[in-house]
Amino acid sequence: MLNIGVLISGSGSNLQSLIDACALDDFPVNIKVVICNKHDAYGIQRAKDAGIETVCISHKDYSDREAFDRQMHHVLEDREVEFVCLAGFMRLLSPWFAQQWHNKMVNIHPSLLPSFKGINAQQQALDYGVKIAGCTLHFVRSEMDTGPIILQAAVEVKSDDTFETLRDRILEQEHRIYVQGLKMIASGQVKVDGDQLVYQ
Amino acid sequence: MLNIGVLISGSGSNLQSLIDACALDDFPVNIKVVICNKHDAYGIQRAKDAGIETVCISHKDYSDREAFDRQMHHVLEDREVEFVCLAGFMRLLSPWFAQQWHNKMVNIHPSLLPSFKGINAQQQALDYGVKIAGCTLHFVRSEMDTGPIILQAAVEVKSDDTFETLRDRILEQEHRIYVQGLKMIASGQVKVDGDQLVYQ
Repeated sequence: MLNIGVLISGSGSNLQSLIDACALDDFPVNIKVVICNKHDAYGIQRAKDAGIETVCISHKDYSDREAFDRQMHHVLEDREVEFVCLAGFMRLLSPWFAQQWHNKMVNIHPSLLPSFKGINAQQQALDYGVKIAGCTLHFVRSEMDTGPIILQAAVEVKSDDTFETLRDRILEQEHRIYVQGLKMIASGQVKVDGDQLVYQ
Repeated sequence: MLNIGVLISGSGSNLQSLIDACALDDFPVNIKVVICNKHDAYGIQRAKDAGIETVCISHKDYSDREAFDRQMHHVLEDREVEFVCLAGFMRLLSPWFAQQWHNKMVNIHPSLLPSFKGINAQQQALDYGVKIAGCTLHFVRSEMDTGPIILQAAVEVKSDDTFETLRDRILEQEHRIYVQGLKMIASGQVKVDGDQLVYQ
């Protein structure tokens, strides 16, 4: 079993898909702790409902980014977390934290990277006028929305799509590839060599 | 019927798919001329085999990019071409030519734009490690590989893909969306308003 910590900032729908997967017999992952930087995020309730420990750490209580990250790191180490899953965590991570969890931290991003990095990727895609959007599960590097890609999924953009309809269609695929990709990692099917994903 | 000119530099496999589509009763497009900047390109033979006029214009015979483009433009006007299709045409176009054919010229690019502009897009995709590649049919603007997108197609990247296998898998989709997109344009299903594709 791979012991993971999940970092969230919001409603935690990707967290929910991980919780649901962990309830299955053949999913070799155990969620040890959910860390949230917003005390009123709905994702906290999802974790509590599943009997998972939640820790709120407000970035406002820390003088700088790394001090905040060190507190998260302390919690993760204390709970013997081996692997970190970002799931709608809306804080940039310090290079120090990225280094601590190098090749042991993944993020899901709602675009086909390298297109549309940063916030509101779905709106960026609509504004650009792409006909294929999607999502990316990737290992985290200190530069935002970069790092070896584990899985991607493509989603058709429809001519009457709004931000909400596209976001929701992409989100379904995020849930799917997050669970699938995390299982590949936990079962040792994929590893990272340098910045290359290697299949075992 | 929409009278088109096709610009090529190489083997012309996308030209071939357009030739094949034009042979169908319900495809409202007529290829008036194929212009090629390389006298030994295999695409010339494809055009000749289909009974289409071919014109070779070597860029080496012209002092600058625009002079070369003005000669191509002269040929296109002379043959009463209404719409230009780039199909593996490996020359950057002058702003003057792009303006002459504004919203009347399309290009096919072997990536999911805006990712991987420029040459060897398939290799760029492999090097980046994306799991979804693809191709884009778009109206041409003077800035390379930009312009309103008509259609895109996604293609899975496999762990054992080489440049050749990925290129060929993308190429199948290029043929498909080029024909489909050109039909949408010729039949008036789509137009461009500013830089937005509009469905009629």
